[in-house]
Amino acid sequence: MPLFMDVHNRVEGLTADAVAGAHQKDLEVQQGRGVEYQKYWFDEASGRVFCLISAPSAEAAAAVHRDGHGLVADEITEVREGQ
Amino acid sequence: MPLFMDVHNRVEGLTADAVAGAHQKDLEVQQGRGVEYQKYWFDEASGRVFCLISAPSAEAAAAVHRDGHGLVADEITEVREGQ
Repeated sequence: MPLFMDVHNRVEGLTADAVAGAHQKDLEVQQGRGVEYQKYWFDEASGRVFCLISAPSAEAAAAVHRDGHGLVADEITEVREGQ
Repeated sequence: MPLFMDVHNRVEGLTADAVAGAHQKDLEVQQGRGVEYQKYWFDEASGRVFCLISAPSAEAAAAVHRDGHGLVADEITEVREGQ
């Protein structure tokens, strides 16, 4: 399954609780779509969030964010993980 | 130890072998500095690279890249990992 890293450059009012809540929505919405939001990293100060996702396509990954909480990433890149 | 994600927006001529070689240099140079280059993700098509690093500071993390192979990231963000 392809792997993607997405970047949210500046989520206004980002808190650890808010991003955890949004991630929980992703985990619910991804069911049955072949999408897995695996991990995320965030910075409250800048509002930046990185999400690591396995998904059949970038569009499928983005659709989970859109349908789960509406916070679509600014960029998404298909990546390979270093060994 | 603080955790950082860095982003290299466009490494010219990036290949899986080249990035693996650069990462190996990081692993050597980080010794004794309290820095650990934990994982990385890359895209040959765009030349984009993401590195996840634990380090005492962003400067300490960047110094390993600079001294190891000279390819310093375009951005580095202190992050927390989502639970």
